[in-house]
Amino acid sequence: MTTRPRFQYRPPNFDAPPLTGAPDARFEPAPADGVLPDGFFSTTNLPTYVKAAGAWSRPRKVRKGQPVAVGTEEDGSQGILVHAEGFLGGSHSANEFGFMQTEVSRERPVDYAVLAQLLGEEKQRGGKIVWVVGPALVHARARDDMIWFVKNGYVQALLGGNAVAVHDLEAAIFGTTLGMTSSGQGVEGGHALHMRAINQIRRAGGITAAVRQGVVTSGIMHALVTHAVPFVLAGSIRDDGPLPEVLADTLVAQDAMREVTAQATFAVFVATALHAIAVGNMLPAFVDASSPDDLRPLTTICVDQTEFVVNKLRDRGTHQAYGVVTNAQDFMHVLRFYVERWEQAQAPAPVLR
Amino acid sequence: MTTRPRFQYRPPNFDAPPLTGAPDARFEPAPADGVLPDGFFSTTNLPTYVKAAGAWSRPRKVRKGQPVAVGTEEDGSQGILVHAEGFLGGSHSANEFGFMQTEVSRERPVDYAVLAQLLGEEKQRGGKIVWVVGPALVHARARDDMIWFVKNGYVQALLGGNAVAVHDLEAAIFGTTLGMTSSGQGVEGGHALHMRAINQIRRAGGITAAVRQGVVTSGIMHALVTHAVPFVLAGSIRDDGPLPEVLADTLVAQDAMREVTAQATFAVFVATALHAIAVGNMLPAFVDASSPDDLRPLTTICVDQTEFVVNKLRDRGTHQAYGVVTNAQDFMHVLRFYVERWEQAQAPAPVLR
Amino acid sequence: MTTRPRFQYRPPNFDAPPLTGAPDARFEPAPADGVLPDGFFSTTNLPTYVKAAGAWSRPRKVRKGQPVAVGTEEDGSQGILVHAEGFLGGSHSANEFGFMQTEVSRERPVDYAVLAQLLGEEKQRGGKIVWVVGPALVHARARDDMIWFVKNGYVQALLGGNAVAVHDLEAAIFGTTLGMTSSGQGVEGGHALHMRAINQIRRAGGITAAVRQGVVTSGIMHALVTHAVPFVLAGSIRDDGPLPEVLADTLVAQDAMREVTAQATFAVFVATALHAIAVGNMLPAFVDASSPDDLRPLTTICVDQTEFVVNKLRDRGTHQAYGVVTNAQDFMHVLRFYVERWEQAQAPAPVLR
Amino acid sequence: MTTRPRFQYRPPNFDAPPLTGAPDARFEPAPADGVLPDGFFSTTNLPTYVKAAGAWSRPRKVRKGQPVAVGTEEDGSQGILVHAEGFLGGSHSANEFGFMQTEVSRERPVDYAVLAQLLGEEKQRGGKIVWVVGPALVHARARDDMIWFVKNGYVQALLGGNAVAVHDLEAAIFGTTLGMTSSGQGVEGGHALHMRAINQIRRAGGITAAVRQGVVTSGIMHALVTHAVPFVLAGSIRDDGPLPEVLADTLVAQDAMREVTAQATFAVFVATALHAIAVGNMLPAFVDASSPDDLRPLTTICVDQTEFVVNKLRDRGTHQAYGVVTNAQDFMHVLRFYVERWEQAQAPAPVLR
Repeated sequence: MTTRPRFQYRPPNFDAPPLTGAPDARFEPAPADGVLPDGFFSTTNLPTYVKAAGAWSRPRKVRKGQPVAVGTEEDGSQGILVHAEGFLGGSHSANEFGFMQTEVSRERPVDYAVLAQLLGEEKQRGGKIVWVVGPALVHARARDDMIWFVKNGYVQALLGGNAVAVHDLEAAIFGTTLGMTSSGQGVEGGHALHMRAINQIRRAGGITAAVRQGVVTSGIMHALVTHAVPFVLAGSIRDDGPLPEVLADTLVAQDAMREVTAQATFAVFVATALHAIAVGNMLPAFVDASSPDDLRPLTTICVDQTEFVVNKLRDRGTHQAYGVVTNAQDFMHVLRFYVERWEQAQAPAPVLR
Repeated sequence: MTTRPRFQYRPPNFDAPPLTGAPDARFEPAPADGVLPDGFFSTTNLPTYVKAAGAWSRPRKVRKGQPVAVGTEEDGSQGILVHAEGFLGGSHSANEFGFMQTEVSRERPVDYAVLAQLLGEEKQRGGKIVWVVGPALVHARARDDMIWFVKNGYVQALLGGNAVAVHDLEAAIFGTTLGMTSSGQGVEGGHALHMRAINQIRRAGGITAAVRQGVVTSGIMHALVTHAVPFVLAGSIRDDGPLPEVLADTLVAQDAMREVTAQATFAVFVATALHAIAVGNMLPAFVDASSPDDLRPLTTICVDQTEFVVNKLRDRGTHQAYGVVTNAQDFMHVLRFYVERWEQAQAPAPVLR
Repeated sequence: MTTRPRFQYRPPNFDAPPLTGAPDARFEPAPADGVLPDGFFSTTNLPTYVKAAGAWSRPRKVRKGQPVAVGTEEDGSQGILVHAEGFLGGSHSANEFGFMQTEVSRERPVDYAVLAQLLGEEKQRGGKIVWVVGPALVHARARDDMIWFVKNGYVQALLGGNAVAVHDLEAAIFGTTLGMTSSGQGVEGGHALHMRAINQIRRAGGITAAVRQGVVTSGIMHALVTHAVPFVLAGSIRDDGPLPEVLADTLVAQDAMREVTAQATFAVFVATALHAIAVGNMLPAFVDASSPDDLRPLTTICVDQTEFVVNKLRDRGTHQAYGVVTNAQDFMHVLRFYVERWEQAQAPAPVLR
Repeated sequence: MTTRPRFQYRPPNFDAPPLTGAPDARFEPAPADGVLPDGFFSTTNLPTYVKAAGAWSRPRKVRKGQPVAVGTEEDGSQGILVHAEGFLGGSHSANEFGFMQTEVSRERPVDYAVLAQLLGEEKQRGGKIVWVVGPALVHARARDDMIWFVKNGYVQALLGGNAVAVHDLEAAIFGTTLGMTSSGQGVEGGHALHMRAINQIRRAGGITAAVRQGVVTSGIMHALVTHAVPFVLAGSIRDDGPLPEVLADTLVAQDAMREVTAQATFAVFVATALHAIAVGNMLPAFVDASSPDDLRPLTTICVDQTEFVVNKLRDRGTHQAYGVVTNAQDFMHVLRFYVERWEQAQAPAPVLR
């Protein structure tokens, strides 16, 4: 019987050596807009504490002109503490955290029952589940599954690029993606259909407008708009069009994405290297809480066809990423199957069947 | 609505030029055991006709000492005709065959409904469905799915290596594969469990004996034995053990595999490069028949995590291979789901649903 | 002895049927800024001719408000002709173009001697060789090789992103890339060094300023600045920083990239999926010329660790891409070796060697 | 300046607790041929000591009928000690061994200078350098490089399969590999040329005979035969032919391979999954020596196009494998370049340069 892995954050003990004797961190003002003082402390997505005026606190986003903590040590000896041990250490938490520490490999079995349970419980507790998706997800069956997750309350925000929306809208308007039907057949003139879809959305004034006007009556974007789920479409130099809602300025897009990730409590990355790494860069490793006892790791599932993206994500600091090496469409199908089964198991007193 | 792709083999017209005027093929005796005459015609897995004594016939396996057709042209002008056009050509057969011609890519949607229908119809018509499987399939859920296919009549033969059987037997005896539980956790001393499983099977005298003695009471090998489905385990230099039924001599193994492939009417390759390419080398591109009108392509589904194996298979002549680029476990799960649905749709007059 | 593949563009014969009787193309005005008329003809990177006022001409970039050709056929019957045959067809050009048509595979030998010759001849004729590079190229030896190509006149423009410049500048300032030395060893505090490099460049006011001020005295960016080779750094949501020269707005970046690609006569893509596909989208398949006889394919070499990127590039219309499936560093090293050898073979009468 | 990593094996201290008080290991006789007693200790490729009659010794190959050590603990408490710390532990050896511990990734720079030095020094000290190679190595330039290594004393044994020899012999006889020229062009009738090459070798009576008779006058196999370098060609079910020297029985092949690996002091695996893993299974992690002080890790370089094979190798216990993720041909070219440079640097007093 599969049991839920349990996590328990253990805050540092500031009242015992060596932390009790730590100096305040040293601060220097930023010399100019966007320029940090030499020796600035480079932040991390793990719980980080800075000591100032004798008290330890966890720092938030560093803004221009503000005092900036400078230092090189992460162990508290310069008044700065990165507390990786809060999740990873301790004798009995080791096993509990083990689920997320497994190596990424196509040869490892994926326990979809656990993934479904984690997702279901996150919905139950009112968490913010963020999906970061690439265009491969929009094909055929996976699109239906994504819509199912939106309609059933498992998506509180969607992050992606121009392509995922264009493919979805092409499917909604013309029934194809990049000119292929859902069974993989090409259609006459199909290569131009995504450009025609973009053109129709532009004429309508945008995706939301196109849904409201009845130009788009189905699909993922339609489901997001009709269920009032916010989405951020970040631009890239690869984009055709782009669609009106796409944030072509990458700095503006990063700010919009950060607004979403700052509130995220659960993340699912499917079939996107660019967006997964971009979001991984800004996603905390933990879900913040007013009481240290309530801190918990931010479950992050990363699905890709190869081990490469997940390993890259981990190399860049998103250590909590749990890799699922498979085809995006099959992942969506199997995950939905297990979530449906989990929901049935939660249902109170089914009279029959 | 998905419709079944229809195939129609069109035999060559031997009564019209240029074939009508073709010479007999030239034959030379093999100079020694295992040595062919210079200029021998290298066979293919496509329908190949040789003209002798004025009549065209399709040749079978060339044996030592027999007369061997010599020639270099495949167009009939030297009495030898390779008839690829029988499947690929013709104006309206082009579309019908299209399903199988689609490029291999993780980005193409896979129409599992069509795969399920093809598999279901093959079972209905009493075909011989051959599965060629690698050890990745034995993990966790995929193992259950494979057992389901065996029990429900979708497996007429299984080809694999030592590892697939060892992993399955380790799971049957110890509940692990390579020392990991089905949820991917390692167990104490786990790395040695596959050696211990081999040892137990050796002591019992083999897999079939171990099933009969009650040493093995579940799993894929158990299902094969209890359902009298033949299996061939071909040895490789990578093997630990190996198990008693493994054919360590690769020439003996090839002969045993050829006995299976010669009767095959449908093939599914899952997560094995070595065995897929070995079987692909010996698998005809078509299902033979007494009447030319009944010839049909031999549906070959090849599942792998990357496009590489499928492309390699095609490069080496298994042109009919339809590639599914995904995780083996997810493939098995989704395929079974669609086959179950197809079976329900076939069921006559369900009273209640 | 390897001989240079020769290409010859064959313009269409507009004076013979069916083209001689083709109607003018139909034009409609763009209904609004950025919105095209329904039925617009979707352009391609192959030579495309439009008939207007009885005369055929090749169209350039379509601007807002301009008349837009509408039609669906590419064969001239609606006054629009896409002339793929100019490069691909014809009996003897087939072989000549064969070099570029070979399938992409790690198992195919790469003829570096031909690549070196093509590159060398392009430099000789004063072409514009555009390099599109990813950060993997900046490691260790490949960085030296890239600098060699810049210094020796094989780079007329460089397109990339923030990361390639950041890694190069980190190497110039601190001797590491992402905190690793050139032999792959990590250094203390290394993970923050790329942030410190960005900070120093920002303080200097930009890359060019940092080179002029002596903050940066070596590396690829240094070579570009000191040899007056233009570069475009396009932003992405994955960027840290970014550096001052990075164009964070993707539409602005696309315009800057198009200025480069419009003049390109040769392209080399190394180890970048995002930028390769973005540039591929805007790169013509041919080098334009005043006389049709001088039109020639735009040689495009695409280097990546897997077949995937090259195949994706081709799927999206960059059919001329010649794939080299290898490690970026080894590619640079071997290519430079062959180019040096080619140069030596060109050298007139070496007195002594 | 690159310096050679130095290794120092540190034998266990058997005279201090807890080892001093360890009991003798428990032994049980093997109950039948090829069947071990329950609870047998599963061996490893790390230095393993067994205590019997009060003395610790390192065990060799376990033979049928012999007493077999039984136990589950590796720490000496049951008289069995696996001494991984000999290589990995100790304060200053940690850095020294670091070179080999780096993660496998296409994004890590490969220090060819170190690889060349290790290879050169191994030749100097009269080591046994074993190459394990796949057919991708035989293409074009890599074939010349492999011949160079044979001729210059860097190859003391070669392990491979039927394909590597067939491709090499096809190249020697017909100038093609799988019907392609060295620049990747197909030739008429090319697909049959490897079968014709096999046929010629069979007629000659084998590879060695074909070299002696002048049927084969160039290539890797020719170089091996003329330089008296032993080779083992292990059969697989994928083989066409096979060639006379191929050991079709995998158990016979494993024995022949073990004779080679038992003497190996250095290993290079290039572009072969099957053979790399098979050899990895039998290759010790260390070079044995009469004095413990002379024990050293057995340098093992594994080259493949993807991280997958190297990671698989490590997962199965060949922890010492140093991965180079690149194209086999480019690897051979660059390695040879660096080895030539290393040789030049070793040359005493060059008069003129």
